[in-house]
Amino acid sequence: MNIVILAFDGITVLDAVGPYEVLQRLPGAEITIVGETAGLKRTDTGSLAINADRAISDVASADILVVPGGFGEEQVRAKPAMLEWVRAIHQTTTWTTSVCTGALILGAAGILKGLKATTHWSAFGTLASFGAIPVSERFVEQGKIITAAGVSAGIDMGLHLARKIAGDKLAHAIQIGIEYDPKPPFDGSPRNAPQDVMRILVDTYARRGLSVT
Amino acid sequence: MNIVILAFDGITVLDAVGPYEVLQRLPGAEITIVGETAGLKRTDTGSLAINADRAISDVASADILVVPGGFGEEQVRAKPAMLEWVRAIHQTTTWTTSVCTGALILGAAGILKGLKATTHWSAFGTLASFGAIPVSERFVEQGKIITAAGVSAGIDMGLHLARKIAGDKLAHAIQIGIEYDPKPPFDGSPRNAPQDVMRILVDTYARRGLSVT
Repeated sequence: MNIVILAFDGITVLDAVGPYEVLQRLPGAEITIVGETAGLKRTDTGSLAINADRAISDVASADILVVPGGFGEEQVRAKPAMLEWVRAIHQTTTWTTSVCTGALILGAAGILKGLKATTHWSAFGTLASFGAIPVSERFVEQGKIITAAGVSAGIDMGLHLARKIAGDKLAHAIQIGIEYDPKPPFDGSPRNAPQDVMRILVDTYARRGLSVT
Repeated sequence: MNIVILAFDGITVLDAVGPYEVLQRLPGAEITIVGETAGLKRTDTGSLAINADRAISDVASADILVVPGGFGEEQVRAKPAMLEWVRAIHQTTTWTTSVCTGALILGAAGILKGLKATTHWSAFGTLASFGAIPVSERFVEQGKIITAAGVSAGIDMGLHLARKIAGDKLAHAIQIGIEYDPKPPFDGSPRNAPQDVMRILVDTYARRGLSVT
């Protein structure tokens, strides 16, 4: 089972690593990290880099495609060759997935038109601009496309996919293997958050030139 | 705030990336990924590599040290120079932390003697062999040392640390920023899991030469 995870500069690395940590535990999983070119791809702060072991020109198919997000997704969306590659790989997949604003890359590639989908809560407006129907769920499955909410939602999406591929027992074992027994200190939903907490985030995104839509 | 995250071959990358994704969002956070030598460090399956941007010889202090785990931790523990470095950095830290079997590296460095600590559920016996007192908690704080349970527990530990450093409002904002509103499909505690699910894990670890203690 050939699993391809896209990497790019400005990636939110947990978007990629959440599904990676789950899916690599499936029997027969072979994961490849793929970039526009091979080589290091740095997070937006530059302080962590993951390596793209292959370039998109070397990868023509995937059983599962995972498209992570991050502030750098806008640069990915701006490149016709990247969108063409996403469309071409999508033709070959059993599952095409995204985490966080990776959904905007799928949207820009034109494969979410008329479909329900989710993304980071701050990007619902942009997602809708690609003809998708934004839905507030942890992840949304539409045919062979699964889009997950922000960042950490890729773990839940990965476990959902593991369950569909390998059944409940193995998916449960994977969950316990990564000891995913979460104890978040706060309510993690933006919909329940106090205004002053949301203000911190809206201001942070504004400094990056993003308005919450 | 100088945050150092150790990387090594055989790392469980989510151990490192969970705290990374939380702590990098703290004001003034400067994160450095550090290895025995600089360069790519691959997960145990080899399919993902993160880059150590600095070698331990170049790093003499840290405000926060994060020691992740993974099957490769045993090789780290076997190297006196690595343990010496951990001990030396620990002298300079405000917080010394571990995720998953990273606690065994702290244990081997001799800094958990007589302290309560946690690690991946499969490694409690090894942790005790270093004189620590294993505790089944999501994370355990003892003075300036915080040890977290397996893999995904680093996210909870990171948020706990963010709360102590920057207060509830900002930590809550970080949690919502990474949309950490988990919806795990199963009960993630090994203590509540059916025997056949645990058997899958025990067999998997046995194939790697590890017995669950």
